[in-house]
Amino acid sequence: MLPKEVGESLSYITYGLYIVTSVDGEKKNGLIVNTVFQVTAEPARVAISVNKNSLTHEYISKSGKFAAMPLAQNTTLPFIGIFGFRTGRNFDKFANVPYKMGPSGCPIVLKDTLSYMEVKVFNTVDMGTHTLFIGDVTDADILCCEHGVPLTYEYYHTVIKGKTPKGATHR
Amino acid sequence: MLPKEVGESLSYITYGLYIVTSVDGEKKNGLIVNTVFQVTAEPARVAISVNKNSLTHEYISKSGKFAAMPLAQNTTLPFIGIFGFRTGRNFDKFANVPYKMGPSGCPIVLKDTLSYMEVKVFNTVDMGTHTLFIGDVTDADILCCEHGVPLTYEYYHTVIKGKTPKGATHR
Repeated sequence: MLPKEVGESLSYITYGLYIVTSVDGEKKNGLIVNTVFQVTAEPARVAISVNKNSLTHEYISKSGKFAAMPLAQNTTLPFIGIFGFRTGRNFDKFANVPYKMGPSGCPIVLKDTLSYMEVKVFNTVDMGTHTLFIGDVTDADILCCEHGVPLTYEYYHTVIKGKTPKGATHR
Repeated sequence: MLPKEVGESLSYITYGLYIVTSVDGEKKNGLIVNTVFQVTAEPARVAISVNKNSLTHEYISKSGKFAAMPLAQNTTLPFIGIFGFRTGRNFDKFANVPYKMGPSGCPIVLKDTLSYMEVKVFNTVDMGTHTLFIGDVTDADILCCEHGVPLTYEYYHTVIKGKTPKGATHR
């Protein structure tokens, strides 16, 4: 258990909410993360941190690629629940969710997402409970309306009254 | 130059604004970054991406430590300018700024900051224009009032009308 002041101090970090998907052959899965971190602008390089226990971690490790999609502010709690609160080991998260396959071969969720970026992983860093996947953006496009408002973790927590599952980096 | 759709797609990533400081012996410096990324919760581990041309990059590389402080929403543009738009090579950024030295030896800015976390770097990843510094939180505490509101990049850009300097990851 972390000292209370550490948790409180880190609670001022600003987060978004993103669906991250990946594939293992024909199989596909996705989960929710609170940070997509743009580490350089040119080339466009991003990093994500994924819990090692998750099925999506297994898929990204195998395929070396993932897609990340910022969620819109009006995303509903049940929709977040599909990707954020269930494991894909015994449940097809895409069964009732509109999606298309992206140019790099990862599923692009088409509901409540503002844009997507497909990423080719070129470095991984073992962080203990999580792995940091760092990669180059290979494809990206807008999915939604102009000037869409992204869902922040703050809005999710205070307005949508969403909870944070065990194993998340921010809790 | 990145394709327009890549820049637009990545513009939906949610950012905060943070002062990051470090030291080189008696010398101290700091700059503004838009992301502090909590990569694991236990232990509390964070990552930042810093432009290689910056003096703070040189100090973090030498000392192996940094402090990160989320800015408050009511931070003024001139104050951001001290850390964000000038180089510390020919200017003492701390000359007129209240601060204290933190337990791990990095300067903790005491104006317009909500909390601090001091971080001991245990891994660096070369990202091209930037270096990713990954480390363990060694000390952290609240600096401000309860329930302080952090400054997001969105608020900085749309309400404070702040600009983004060249070399930033998000532009």
